[in-house]
Amino acid sequence: MCRWLAYFGDPIRPEELLYQPGRSLIEQSRRGTPGAAVNNGDGYGLGWYGLHDRPGLFRSISPAWGDANLRELSAQIRSPLFLAHVRAATGTPVQQTNCHPFRHGRWLFVHNGYIGEFWRLRRELLLAVDPVLFRGIDGSTDSEVMFYLGLTFGLAEDPVGGLERMAGLIEDVGRRAGVEHPLQMTVGLSDGERLYAVRYASGPVVNTLFVSSSVADIRLLYPEDERFRHFSDEARVVVSEPLIDLPGLWEEIPASSSLVVQDGPDLVTAFRPQPP
Amino acid sequence: MCRWLAYFGDPIRPEELLYQPGRSLIEQSRRGTPGAAVNNGDGYGLGWYGLHDRPGLFRSISPAWGDANLRELSAQIRSPLFLAHVRAATGTPVQQTNCHPFRHGRWLFVHNGYIGEFWRLRRELLLAVDPVLFRGIDGSTDSEVMFYLGLTFGLAEDPVGGLERMAGLIEDVGRRAGVEHPLQMTVGLSDGERLYAVRYASGPVVNTLFVSSSVADIRLLYPEDERFRHFSDEARVVVSEPLIDLPGLWEEIPASSSLVVQDGPDLVTAFRPQPP
Amino acid sequence: MCRWLAYFGDPIRPEELLYQPGRSLIEQSRRGTPGAAVNNGDGYGLGWYGLHDRPGLFRSISPAWGDANLRELSAQIRSPLFLAHVRAATGTPVQQTNCHPFRHGRWLFVHNGYIGEFWRLRRELLLAVDPVLFRGIDGSTDSEVMFYLGLTFGLAEDPVGGLERMAGLIEDVGRRAGVEHPLQMTVGLSDGERLYAVRYASGPVVNTLFVSSSVADIRLLYPEDERFRHFSDEARVVVSEPLIDLPGLWEEIPASSSLVVQDGPDLVTAFRPQPP
Amino acid sequence: MCRWLAYFGDPIRPEELLYQPGRSLIEQSRRGTPGAAVNNGDGYGLGWYGLHDRPGLFRSISPAWGDANLRELSAQIRSPLFLAHVRAATGTPVQQTNCHPFRHGRWLFVHNGYIGEFWRLRRELLLAVDPVLFRGIDGSTDSEVMFYLGLTFGLAEDPVGGLERMAGLIEDVGRRAGVEHPLQMTVGLSDGERLYAVRYASGPVVNTLFVSSSVADIRLLYPEDERFRHFSDEARVVVSEPLIDLPGLWEEIPASSSLVVQDGPDLVTAFRPQPP
Repeated sequence: MCRWLAYFGDPIRPEELLYQPGRSLIEQSRRGTPGAAVNNGDGYGLGWYGLHDRPGLFRSISPAWGDANLRELSAQIRSPLFLAHVRAATGTPVQQTNCHPFRHGRWLFVHNGYIGEFWRLRRELLLAVDPVLFRGIDGSTDSEVMFYLGLTFGLAEDPVGGLERMAGLIEDVGRRAGVEHPLQMTVGLSDGERLYAVRYASGPVVNTLFVSSSVADIRLLYPEDERFRHFSDEARVVVSEPLIDLPGLWEEIPASSSLVVQDGPDLVTAFRPQPP
Repeated sequence: MCRWLAYFGDPIRPEELLYQPGRSLIEQSRRGTPGAAVNNGDGYGLGWYGLHDRPGLFRSISPAWGDANLRELSAQIRSPLFLAHVRAATGTPVQQTNCHPFRHGRWLFVHNGYIGEFWRLRRELLLAVDPVLFRGIDGSTDSEVMFYLGLTFGLAEDPVGGLERMAGLIEDVGRRAGVEHPLQMTVGLSDGERLYAVRYASGPVVNTLFVSSSVADIRLLYPEDERFRHFSDEARVVVSEPLIDLPGLWEEIPASSSLVVQDGPDLVTAFRPQPP
Repeated sequence: MCRWLAYFGDPIRPEELLYQPGRSLIEQSRRGTPGAAVNNGDGYGLGWYGLHDRPGLFRSISPAWGDANLRELSAQIRSPLFLAHVRAATGTPVQQTNCHPFRHGRWLFVHNGYIGEFWRLRRELLLAVDPVLFRGIDGSTDSEVMFYLGLTFGLAEDPVGGLERMAGLIEDVGRRAGVEHPLQMTVGLSDGERLYAVRYASGPVVNTLFVSSSVADIRLLYPEDERFRHFSDEARVVVSEPLIDLPGLWEEIPASSSLVVQDGPDLVTAFRPQPP
Repeated sequence: MCRWLAYFGDPIRPEELLYQPGRSLIEQSRRGTPGAAVNNGDGYGLGWYGLHDRPGLFRSISPAWGDANLRELSAQIRSPLFLAHVRAATGTPVQQTNCHPFRHGRWLFVHNGYIGEFWRLRRELLLAVDPVLFRGIDGSTDSEVMFYLGLTFGLAEDPVGGLERMAGLIEDVGRRAGVEHPLQMTVGLSDGERLYAVRYASGPVVNTLFVSSSVADIRLLYPEDERFRHFSDEARVVVSEPLIDLPGLWEEIPASSSLVVQDGPDLVTAFRPQPP
């Protein structure tokens, strides 16, 4: 099981969320949560919007907890929108091209979950990727194939719709191949203007996903930390697991729903896979 | 341009060929040959037959010249048949799954060369791989696709024939896509019993490939080195570039031909791509 | 807290102990034991006696659990005496030269524990190392300094005595600097003929160390596994934590004692640090 | 032989100097200059002044030419003062703590050259480092010891004087130990306000060092590249080897001299080692 985090708001240094909270993403990667069988030591990634339309991307196969470069980088940049991911490999190799986020043009994508029996389905799913987009696939994970299927199905114009058609195809291909629950996912996606978060699974068990309930709550996180006084009213953090235990701070994103974080009111809508 | 080396004969420590000759494979990887534009610092691999039918495989993205583990390993094992490769990446990522040799069951495969405009042809070539074999493709190189196409076309039963059909398909797909010279290759292949070496290119420029002319010549390599007195009469070394400059020592394998090194007389035959 | 394992007996493939038991060293490195705060993902090493007097050494900063090369190597060699170690860094960098085992000539050394407030003591301890031996120190860990202090104090002629004088010096330097409990250690040491294991701490808490109670018990470990029928009567496994939970299988090595595993009867003696 | 580059001027993206000139530092690292025996594939580093007084530091053991993270980072930050280094190891291990720049507080340090017979002198030189500063030494290179000797001898208050006393001590220790030419160096040093560059050797052969002659010349470098129109009048680039061949563009810094690049006129003074 991977873990991820996304931030939307006024520019901050990523280290403020990656390292400083009580149970930061990096600390989670090393220690695991109660009950977690394994750690998240199989690589990590940070994607951030900054100087250019095209986001920066930093990925490594080192465990995040011991990586001096991640600590440096996340202290030396400021970004209004970033996504970070720590990986626990589930069958595909530990290599940079399998680390999240995945990037295509302005888009960043992170995923926690899996495609059931991916190795049986992989070839058929790859065939469904647009042949020109196909050239951008560098790694061997199910997650990257999900991203490229979303792109194939119009994610760039209709992000949630693209993801619904991606999910619909995977369920269709999987069920025809006899996979009972083909898809398990929480997904984070951004084009640098909005942050999209989706929580969905084909079966009854759905990976968790949380959003910070309001900026006032973010300030609660760090009552004595002046650095967080500047958090903007629009600021939101989306996380696969809570960073700190404060009742009322985190809202669980409902299963089978998508969240759009943006300037102005956020949107929560039902997420319904669209079969091909 | 990658470089590779293969050994067939009585068991030796791989370090005897990787490190000890005047211009060893490792030294070549760092310094280049005269005229070589770049070094071979983008990973390496060693595959060897030893305790089991399935060969051992050791691959790393470190430059070979500075890798303590390769030096240790190649001094601590003995093998009658091994293949080593140093990589200069030409567009695909530097990652372990892109390092040669590639392995499937008992088979090892190394390649120096390229498929012309591979990124345009990749999808169609992947589709031609047998769907069950397809599951074994871990990396993103043209070389690995060549190996799996060979396996698809019967390499395990008819090694040279499988490679000829692989080459024929690539030329057919490439030319239909407007690639003038789709294939450039020297290939090393083994099942642990025989060593196969092929030199071929679609166009007039063909990468070099050499075989040591006889065991007497191998002894000439190291006239004062007692360790090499034990080289067996059947011993052969195949290399993409000569390891040491001694007139008469290395025979160039002719373009468009295949060599089979085995117990008993070696075979050289014409290599003729078979279109599908 | 690091973990380590040592084997003495008829030659086996290291994978039989690293990967195959129910709670193998590699599995331990990923999951931790109940109560362990962190995993052992900060590099690993395997040292083994084989073709030469000088042992082979394979060390990497990758987490052991995902490292294909360790799996290959440990399946492709056979050794009558090897030491393996998985690291959880406690302040010093994750780099190959900080991975155990450390090697000097024929000697291999692994350590679980620490020198208290090492960074304050490091300079004085380094000064106590013999100036010629000093040239062999490549890394920055307390463990490597312990090994070189042992070598300085005659470990090569009197292994346990050398370690006792090393421990005595560290306690002396530490206590003069105000460190209450300067030393915590389980140590594994070998010259290829004998295996030495020491368990000691300056304070009341002493890291665990176990030895397999007899070869009959090793066979109990794998009652249905024919590969282990060949274990020799002299075979012993020393581990920082038990590999499998079977009552009576593992004997705890008493605190403040040393064990010598050798041909003929093993020896357990008191371990008494010798101040300088 | 290592290579390095330093920039002082209005903020630019480091990629403009690392990747874009005809013979950029990264390209140099891969191809070598005519006559260079080996490449610079043994790690690299980038140190830059940005959001904080303490500079950012990014170091890796990968070859620079293939490292996606360096390319990303150097495109996504802007800095008015940075130092970059590509390493060719000369006996000490390839590890992150041996990569330049070295950092202490606000200071960054890069070096091309060596201390003659360092392994014989290392212990005595380490002993000359201030015991509190000593705790900051993480790696095993001669270069890092040079930096800490400079810090010990007052580099933070008197940069060139500190380096002169460092050089004087090394020559003194070296010559007493029978080393004919103990020191070979070009050094880059900064505190974020000024850039110091020193060229010196104990013997007649002195590594090269160049400074761009004026901002007008920098603009000549990229006559058609609008991105370089914004180069400030104070901008200077210091390099171990010229990045591009344009007569008159680069001034060689004289042997045995130091250059201070700063707001206002730059200074060139004689560099005279001060024996202890």
